Amino acid sequence: MILERHLFGPGPSNPYPEATAALGLPILGHLDPAFLAMMDETCEWLRTVWGTANARTLPLSATGSAGMEAAFVNTVHEGDVVVVAVNGLFGQRMCDVAARCGAEVVPVEHEWGTPVDVDRVTGAHPSPAIIAAVHAETSTGVRSDIAGLGAGKGDALLLTDAVTSIAGIELHADEWGIDVGYAGTQKCLGVAPGLAPFTINDRAFERRVEKPRSWYLDLGLLGGYVGEAGTKAGGGRTYHHTAPVAMVASLHAGLGRILEEGLESVWARHAAAGQQLQDGLEQRGLELFAEKGSRLPELTTVKVPDGVDSAAVRARLLERFGLEIGAGAGAYAATVWRIGLMGHNARPDAVELVLAALDEVLA
Amino acid sequence: MILERHLFGPGPSNPYPEATAALGLPILGHLDPAFLAMMDETCEWLRTVWGTANARTLPLSATGSAGMEAAFVNTVHEGDVVVVAVNGLFGQRMCDVAARCGAEVVPVEHEWGTPVDVDRVTGAHPSPAIIAAVHAETSTGVRSDIAGLGAGKGDALLLTDAVTSIAGIELHADEWGIDVGYAGTQKCLGVAPGLAPFTINDRAFERRVEKPRSWYLDLGLLGGYVGEAGTKAGGGRTYHHTAPVAMVASLHAGLGRILEEGLESVWARHAAAGQQLQDGLEQRGLELFAEKGSRLPELTTVKVPDGVDSAAVRARLLERFGLEIGAGAGAYAATVWRIGLMGHNARPDAVELVLAALDEVLA
Repeated sequence: MILERHLFGPGPSNPYPEATAALGLPILGHLDPAFLAMMDETCEWLRTVWGTANARTLPLSATGSAGMEAAFVNTVHEGDVVVVAVNGLFGQRMCDVAARCGAEVVPVEHEWGTPVDVDRVTGAHPSPAIIAAVHAETSTGVRSDIAGLGAGKGDALLLTDAVTSIAGIELHADEWGIDVGYAGTQKCLGVAPGLAPFTINDRAFERRVEKPRSWYLDLGLLGGYVGEAGTKAGGGRTYHHTAPVAMVASLHAGLGRILEEGLESVWARHAAAGQQLQDGLEQRGLELFAEKGSRLPELTTVKVPDGVDSAAVRARLLERFGLEIGAGAGAYAATVWRIGLMGHNARPDAVELVLAALDEVLA
Repeated sequence: MILERHLFGPGPSNPYPEATAALGLPILGHLDPAFLAMMDETCEWLRTVWGTANARTLPLSATGSAGMEAAFVNTVHEGDVVVVAVNGLFGQRMCDVAARCGAEVVPVEHEWGTPVDVDRVTGAHPSPAIIAAVHAETSTGVRSDIAGLGAGKGDALLLTDAVTSIAGIELHADEWGIDVGYAGTQKCLGVAPGLAPFTINDRAFERRVEKPRSWYLDLGLLGGYVGEAGTKAGGGRTYHHTAPVAMVASLHAGLGRILEEGLESVWARHAAAGQQLQDGLEQRGLELFAEKGSRLPELTTVKVPDGVDSAAVRARLLERFGLEIGAGAGAYAATVWRIGLMGHNARPDAVELVLAALDEVLA
């Protein structure tokens, strides 16, 4: 029996139908001219969703967490001061990853559920090499002001996690001063998990580690893998590793769908769905977790009502409706739910379904 | 227009139909009990194709090259002596990756096209921490004697690249003394590229680097990701990263197909197809590149006849027949072709097609 799920957790989300259809097509060789042309177009379309003109914009061949690792391993020189804004699980993870790369990490802790305090972060150290922050914290459903960090970064590089923001809410990497960014495919991009859309500008690339500890994620080598900017499809490629061709084809299809709809329309669709859900939850007397004014539309965090067994509700939703919502993260595992309306699921019918399902299960 | 290719290069190969069909199914959440059960079964079936009882056997969430990196980054302590058998491109790459992990690399060079010399490799250093070798060199089409290295490894760990051998030729990780092994999905496993089947035994795990430089590939953390051995599906998982659920489902389906056919039958099918191809090429007066007695059935290397433009032939095969064969690697890029008959393509009809196509294009 083929299982079908409504994936309304923090990701993966149900892919756009175009992305799923692409996965089922015959695969191409990783050096096939037709595949290389598809890779070129994928990189070009990624530039659009990142809001960047960076030549070095590509899908890394691993999940979003490897994007985080690529960001640090290519930019942290031994002993570099890295200021990390920590307002959730993924900020914490940045500290771990940066430290393994040899950074002197300066974490700036925030209460979970609140956005990053730009002044505290930019003032945390007089001359950091890197300032790192999460745009949309998947663990808490909070949006932070990346443009503010970019304005106050000084000489530091600004490194940004856009895993849950890309193609869901406004993201303007160049305008905001993002030097290095990584994302994932399985949230608002509406593609299965497995790739990490990545971008790095010239400023950061010039300061990179020449021979990073990771061969697989070495951006100096990966330039040849995607033929870098301006290289014609089919020429100028250097073999690095075998591209995950099926996943790249799926990402290409998902991006095509998004750009056909229009990126601003997609943002508006996410905004509307998130507002509809959050209004509906509050009308039912449920309390939202993320601070008002910083709530992500694509990922809503809501407090589990007193006396309600969080896991039992989630199990019942899955069993009765094939509907997945997420537990909370970290200390909030049992007291918060995370409800994602990402990519293909950012639709009014999805909102009505999840609200009706909650009504029944909580009754 | 949907492009269809005969992928007779060094990989990716055309996936088994079951593996392609699985990619097109609705995806599951990465913590869904049904997905966790599928992951458990995938790890169990990977044990079978590896020939191992290792609890720590799992598909890493990146391509085969990341498997190589995981093998070294988890086992090389700063300054460790690592003896690497180099008889092709992937042996060379091992030297680069191991050095980035802090190894003192002792390369043992061989002429390309020849197998690893067990005595030279095991005698290259009195007390290496690690001996590393490629079982089936994708760059040359040569099979090496891993069992011999295992018998002579002494106290060293034996680290083996099985990217092009797994599920194509005999592989007995435990019997041969392989301590750490990695592979890829896109060759004889008959699945699209994107995952790295990995195995590590207790002996190697106990000697591992406690906090390796790579967070993404840290086997200490990845134990929780797959629930380790004996953990029931749905319980005992620790969130590490979001599993690439579509690719795992596809690997599960590919492995299911292989085990349904029977692993020994699959090996026999590869052996027969390779022999048929190599006989056919020699009957046509073409000269094989890999040394007789060490030729892989799943990947045949053949010298480009004098006066023939290698790239023009490959382009013509692609254009007229949608048929891909590979160029040579490294110094042999223009003088050797690589013809793969892997997984689903290890069939007599595939052999006849590639021979007939070559006949026409070389006429």
